[in-house]
Amino acid sequence: MSVALQPNPNYTLVLNKLELSEYVKEVFPQADSYQWKVEQLVPGSVAVSMQIEEHHLRPGGTVSGPTMFALADVAAYLVILGHIGKVALAVTTSLNINFLSKPPHGNLMARCDLIKLGKRLAICELHIIGVEDEHIVAQATVTYSIPPRLS
Amino acid sequence: MSVALQPNPNYTLVLNKLELSEYVKEVFPQADSYQWKVEQLVPGSVAVSMQIEEHHLRPGGTVSGPTMFALADVAAYLVILGHIGKVALAVTTSLNINFLSKPPHGNLMARCDLIKLGKRLAICELHIIGVEDEHIVAQATVTYSIPPRLS
Amino acid sequence: MSVALQPNPNYTLVLNKLELSEYVKEVFPQADSYQWKVEQLVPGSVAVSMQIEEHHLRPGGTVSGPTMFALADVAAYLVILGHIGKVALAVTTSLNINFLSKPPHGNLMARCDLIKLGKRLAICELHIIGVEDEHIVAQATVTYSIPPRLS
Amino acid sequence: MSVALQPNPNYTLVLNKLELSEYVKEVFPQADSYQWKVEQLVPGSVAVSMQIEEHHLRPGGTVSGPTMFALADVAAYLVILGHIGKVALAVTTSLNINFLSKPPHGNLMARCDLIKLGKRLAICELHIIGVEDEHIVAQATVTYSIPPRLS
Repeated sequence: MSVALQPNPNYTLVLNKLELSEYVKEVFPQADSYQWKVEQLVPGSVAVSMQIEEHHLRPGGTVSGPTMFALADVAAYLVILGHIGKVALAVTTSLNINFLSKPPHGNLMARCDLIKLGKRLAICELHIIGVEDEHIVAQATVTYSIPPRLS
Repeated sequence: MSVALQPNPNYTLVLNKLELSEYVKEVFPQADSYQWKVEQLVPGSVAVSMQIEEHHLRPGGTVSGPTMFALADVAAYLVILGHIGKVALAVTTSLNINFLSKPPHGNLMARCDLIKLGKRLAICELHIIGVEDEHIVAQATVTYSIPPRLS
Repeated sequence: MSVALQPNPNYTLVLNKLELSEYVKEVFPQADSYQWKVEQLVPGSVAVSMQIEEHHLRPGGTVSGPTMFALADVAAYLVILGHIGKVALAVTTSLNINFLSKPPHGNLMARCDLIKLGKRLAICELHIIGVEDEHIVAQATVTYSIPPRLS
Repeated sequence: MSVALQPNPNYTLVLNKLELSEYVKEVFPQADSYQWKVEQLVPGSVAVSMQIEEHHLRPGGTVSGPTMFALADVAAYLVILGHIGKVALAVTTSLNINFLSKPPHGNLMARCDLIKLGKRLAICELHIIGVEDEHIVAQATVTYSIPPRLS
């Protein structure tokens, strides 16, 4: 796999890849039905692969919209929690997705970049690509609301 | 159920509720994993209910994002095909969804209105509400690309 | 003009049409370059007209995108402030607009409905229509961030 | 200026920077009221600066939303026409913009990348940054409809 995420000097991670994966597997609902894996985690960005199984496919072999939605949503959740820590109750407030081309056979990868990390809102943008051919199949922008933290 | 869709005089249906439901059950992939039903169909609008089952829930009992995505997407597909006929290859090109409040227990309903039906693009907007309390839980705008028709 | 806004029993106004208009004219920047007017204000909704002038037009006589953006943005600001009061520092965090058809000659009207009014975020959806023919020319969803209030 | 656009091998330009600028100045309406300039043009991407003047500002010195909308829209138009040629009638069908932070004093720059260039739809994503501090102030996704070409 040739993902090469560039660290963004404006951001600082507070969890490492293993801590983040274990925490999100524990608290995130899609953990059961979608087989995702954090491939890379650098300040500002994450790469998350999703293993595509029979039940994610439409007839003809393309990946369904809800499956791509789930990949976009979990990638955003991962990159945000990597930078704010174990705040399970961060919730998606909006998701805008553009479907660009028919997904290839095989697994998918989301490359997700933080573009804003405020106290109350975090926003990231991401591309979903085919793992094998690196062709972009969807683009999304995701906004999460971050609950007030006790301090 | 107290949905009361208003017919829009700018639109004309070409399929009735039964024809539409049967066709979409046949060609739409989510038919297997999501239990949706066309509750009403009038010129310009559709109301589609979705039966929420255990595997659509997050811990705590709220409906997952991908499930609401799937409801929005199928409602848009239904209202568009109701007006253009059996054009299976209409595909979602973008979907923008805002999550407004925690979904209630119980089934969901999408009320979906066409706002544009062009030769190449169709756009609709929709609200997802709880069937029991009619509280709005999500708002979405969905764009479909319509393939060129042979004529 | 035949706008007929329905009051939404879930919302309560805290400013009347005159108070709202005067306050926004005072604090909102576009007041100088766009001639807008609150036509109706009911709980949950506002109707705002905009007088289209020569410099808002593209060649051919259609209204420019930035002009429609400005109308959508001010309508959202108006409906939100009508319900939260004189909170000048509410700021737009996102705006999603779909251009549906070529605007007609003549003035435009935005009909804008609140769909969420939280402590931190307010979301509304709106249609921009031609005042004369009531044809819909654009649809938008606008999110504002509401600053924490001293209390 | 330190923009460093990377050429994308999937795209091929059909106009050079000068041809593109002259054509768009001629046909694009905002040419009169906004002072934009193509800074770089490479396959797949464009960088466009906008000179901010007094009438683009809100009180307090921030750039108005409609001004950022106009910059996003013209940058998208430029990158698309750079790859399809003198097709004046390409029109914006949707624009989704997130405002991330208060714009700095000084001029703005949009870096805009094509993510899809189909026969009927083109989609690009862009960042608006402050020219001086390179801080990102807004992110947008823009869809254009391309008219059928005679051939």
